[in-house]
Amino acid sequence: MNSSKIRTDLALEAHENIENAELKTRGIKVDEIFHEQTHTKITKLHVTTRNGSHTNGKPIGTYITLETPNLVEEDEDYHREISMELAEQLEEIIPDFKKEQSILVVGLGNRDVTADALGPNVIDNLFITRHIINTYGKAAYNKTKMHAVSSLVPGVMAKNGMETSEIVKGVIDQTHPNVMIVIDALAARSIRRLNRTIQITNTGIHPGSGVGNHRNGLTKDTLGIPVIAIGIPTVVDAATIVKDAASQMGHDFQPSPLSQEQENLLYELHNMYVTSKDVDAVIKRLSYMVSEALNIAFSCF
Amino acid sequence: MNSSKIRTDLALEAHENIENAELKTRGIKVDEIFHEQTHTKITKLHVTTRNGSHTNGKPIGTYITLETPNLVEEDEDYHREISMELAEQLEEIIPDFKKEQSILVVGLGNRDVTADALGPNVIDNLFITRHIINTYGKAAYNKTKMHAVSSLVPGVMAKNGMETSEIVKGVIDQTHPNVMIVIDALAARSIRRLNRTIQITNTGIHPGSGVGNHRNGLTKDTLGIPVIAIGIPTVVDAATIVKDAASQMGHDFQPSPLSQEQENLLYELHNMYVTSKDVDAVIKRLSYMVSEALNIAFSCF
Amino acid sequence: MNSSKIRTDLALEAHENIENAELKTRGIKVDEIFHEQTHTKITKLHVTTRNGSHTNGKPIGTYITLETPNLVEEDEDYHREISMELAEQLEEIIPDFKKEQSILVVGLGNRDVTADALGPNVIDNLFITRHIINTYGKAAYNKTKMHAVSSLVPGVMAKNGMETSEIVKGVIDQTHPNVMIVIDALAARSIRRLNRTIQITNTGIHPGSGVGNHRNGLTKDTLGIPVIAIGIPTVVDAATIVKDAASQMGHDFQPSPLSQEQENLLYELHNMYVTSKDVDAVIKRLSYMVSEALNIAFSCF
Amino acid sequence: MNSSKIRTDLALEAHENIENAELKTRGIKVDEIFHEQTHTKITKLHVTTRNGSHTNGKPIGTYITLETPNLVEEDEDYHREISMELAEQLEEIIPDFKKEQSILVVGLGNRDVTADALGPNVIDNLFITRHIINTYGKAAYNKTKMHAVSSLVPGVMAKNGMETSEIVKGVIDQTHPNVMIVIDALAARSIRRLNRTIQITNTGIHPGSGVGNHRNGLTKDTLGIPVIAIGIPTVVDAATIVKDAASQMGHDFQPSPLSQEQENLLYELHNMYVTSKDVDAVIKRLSYMVSEALNIAFSCF
Repeated sequence: MNSSKIRTDLALEAHENIENAELKTRGIKVDEIFHEQTHTKITKLHVTTRNGSHTNGKPIGTYITLETPNLVEEDEDYHREISMELAEQLEEIIPDFKKEQSILVVGLGNRDVTADALGPNVIDNLFITRHIINTYGKAAYNKTKMHAVSSLVPGVMAKNGMETSEIVKGVIDQTHPNVMIVIDALAARSIRRLNRTIQITNTGIHPGSGVGNHRNGLTKDTLGIPVIAIGIPTVVDAATIVKDAASQMGHDFQPSPLSQEQENLLYELHNMYVTSKDVDAVIKRLSYMVSEALNIAFSCF
Repeated sequence: MNSSKIRTDLALEAHENIENAELKTRGIKVDEIFHEQTHTKITKLHVTTRNGSHTNGKPIGTYITLETPNLVEEDEDYHREISMELAEQLEEIIPDFKKEQSILVVGLGNRDVTADALGPNVIDNLFITRHIINTYGKAAYNKTKMHAVSSLVPGVMAKNGMETSEIVKGVIDQTHPNVMIVIDALAARSIRRLNRTIQITNTGIHPGSGVGNHRNGLTKDTLGIPVIAIGIPTVVDAATIVKDAASQMGHDFQPSPLSQEQENLLYELHNMYVTSKDVDAVIKRLSYMVSEALNIAFSCF
Repeated sequence: MNSSKIRTDLALEAHENIENAELKTRGIKVDEIFHEQTHTKITKLHVTTRNGSHTNGKPIGTYITLETPNLVEEDEDYHREISMELAEQLEEIIPDFKKEQSILVVGLGNRDVTADALGPNVIDNLFITRHIINTYGKAAYNKTKMHAVSSLVPGVMAKNGMETSEIVKGVIDQTHPNVMIVIDALAARSIRRLNRTIQITNTGIHPGSGVGNHRNGLTKDTLGIPVIAIGIPTVVDAATIVKDAASQMGHDFQPSPLSQEQENLLYELHNMYVTSKDVDAVIKRLSYMVSEALNIAFSCF
Repeated sequence: MNSSKIRTDLALEAHENIENAELKTRGIKVDEIFHEQTHTKITKLHVTTRNGSHTNGKPIGTYITLETPNLVEEDEDYHREISMELAEQLEEIIPDFKKEQSILVVGLGNRDVTADALGPNVIDNLFITRHIINTYGKAAYNKTKMHAVSSLVPGVMAKNGMETSEIVKGVIDQTHPNVMIVIDALAARSIRRLNRTIQITNTGIHPGSGVGNHRNGLTKDTLGIPVIAIGIPTVVDAATIVKDAASQMGHDFQPSPLSQEQENLLYELHNMYVTSKDVDAVIKRLSYMVSEALNIAFSCF
């Protein structure tokens, strides 16, 4: 079974699945920190060369991963701490963050599918300022320096008939933000990562990523402005989980060719995903934590 | 009290409020039909000159008004008939409707305010085809000729920090529809019109109209394509209802200047609206009726 | 115009509308406090006799009113302070609150009508513990003493065909709480009270109160346990606002008999209400503030 | 692997998984019909003895299963036909349906988890009559004979702290319906059954069934009135799918004991489920189809 075919949106997970030690370090630089107070492990994975990109399956850029075991627990104070940790990482990775910026925050995903609603739900709790600043000036907030924040929930193609990239590009052309932050629910390979991992990257969103499988990318190349993506895995592809479980049980789909029945099963599984039974409570907490992180970061001066 | 200052989004209502017989006919042409079967009165009001536009307070163009007493009643068959009536009017007013078109349907309003959710709710029940046609061709529907339908729910400025017109213009520039249909909840002057009147116009949406008070227009001038607007009054401005009631009681706010207290009351009233207590059931039925009308019209060949 | 016919759910407002000084004090005791820090005026109105009840139109009992000008402003810290103020008042008015209790919190109102969704929205953010305590004991929370909290959103009669009192009584009979707290959106007489006033009373909910006009009461008499009601006015009856405005303009509906047209207008107005245009944001903030107050109060030991 | 341990809420699926031919027929009677027009296979499985019940794992009673390949397709006319088919089966299985009844329809499940929202969504489109009949009589509908319909959405224990059975029992004690119909999203064993199968049974709901895993039963024994359950599988347990896939790949979890890692994986999988990516569209269509079936059946005279 070729690990590169296994679907994961997490660069760190892809990295861990590479077994060859030499491949693992060529064009890849990894820094790890552990924050005692929040029990959070922060891994900064830098894909620095095309070789590294090829091995990892992710574009050149920086991937910050926050892993924390308690992300889904009901502890308001703890979530506040994680929000602050995330805010700090954002302030670092957003280019020129100490200069005033016009920031567009995009919440990807389908509001009507609980596991895919992370992005839209984050937007619901954002503090939006662009329209007030445009109309009344920063004086309305008693400030002389502040970021202008706008937001967009583009929805999904099955419901609006358009590529997400078409909507986002159109809105950027009209409103001229300096930087875009995009939030998305991701698919992990391992159920152990579900709801426990946050990935921040400066490489944007690439085709095939996210629960909703965006067909076109949202990147600096396609949109003309830096794109910071924040993703949290909320599902595992059903096909992946079956393959992994089978493999863990000592068996493998390969090398013998699959029977027609096996092919059909895998085909159906590719239109399905695995998620936790309390996904509503999980998404509620995670989206609040991310929106707080953004609100904290955006009010940095 | 100058009637032109009374807020109504309905051209017909504005027309009725003009008392001067000569003004009433200059630059205005009115045709009326009554459909027995559906108890529906259809009035086509054509504003043909700048004089007519000045008197009526509405731009040059056609305003079709369907008035029907039973719009809010729970009768599925009846609603189907009204949907078909509305579909017929749409087919007539949409330019070149017998040619294949790419149609963008925009649902204005705030999904989280029941009385303002008509537009977003209509979009929820639309049959969207553009993405399927773009990817698989019309053959996917066993057709050689069909309209491509896409949709957009732009949301409200208080939540996304952008003008609706910025979002709509951006999306049109990227997706190139031939015609746009926009759905909006309107404000009427009289509570007797609430939920009983449908207005279709080829003049688009103008600043200050709708429950949500859009600041910028959505018109052929600003967007470059024909804009057909479908509106149903679901609220009355609170200030209007107070003025009207006072006037009906034989009293008038004018001519003596208002006291400070009266000014304050009117100011607060301008941030309020009047709506019916069963607004949720009303909006549910009306939005289904409009989405069915659009689905019927769009499947015309 | 008989002031007792004017609809208000607020005992304090009813009290203020009594003009006769003697009537105003007979069987009524009023204490006022002003809290500088939160700009909150707290009025405790005790209806102590049947005479007082008759004059005020409210049952014998205690009515605590918190008035604060900033309730709707976007200031998280401020809302926290109001939540703590409200929690304090609750701890005082709930009988035997320092003993362990089983508390049922009921959120009245229609989730699908924004102005009426206060009750259901409060429930969404409550910390519910009864099922955990019943299954695993208080040890699951590392506590030896704690309240058991359960909740109910009964919905509205138009959608479930039942009286709210039937559902609530049934659930109480099965689950045996010691005390019930009920949250409801209220109707005020004056728009100046909208979203700025919180009423807490130990008299429960009475027929005809609330935005949704409950027909049967929810009181200690009907349910057998103490009922504490928390209400916030989110609407004004449309008929009331018209009468008041007319009266303020120096005119009155009375004394001459109303014309048929005037009667019709008033009749239609009684099925309508007035609410603020940003009712969605208002309800979101108010419901969060109330749920926090309950969570704070319930975790008192 | 003991098939009786495999979780399925479908009696037909449990029956199919029994391999022993003698066991398969003892205490079990099976009738099959195929309706050409709707491509629907209707299987009536009667569990007639305790032996049959033990083998099948389902209580004594009747289980009608409608299987139809096109349930999820977007074809309004087709869904109408299935609704009528379902209505017919309901009229047959509800006791004394030709006599006037007071019917309580209960929508189980969690409205905030898309795959579990079937029950609550069905209730949203029901035609509710009990309160009108109680207040104005059947004359309000111009009828002399009609069923009185009420509804209940009890929610889930994690949010209200109560057993569903406590709420349902309380409401029945207060409102005295003659029969209860309960709608629930089910868990199937095979992904091939997802969204394609409807089960109707007169045995009610049993502990451990449904997506949300109700702990206490809702049956004639516990509630005192006949309970008809309508269920549609919308998820597959993640543990089941992994076991099945492994088994289909020629491997089995057994007979060798599982490693600790394997045990952990299975444990985590038991808190997860598999569902289709377009679960929102599927649930929308299925719930509309069921509510139409109920509305058709209830208006039988």
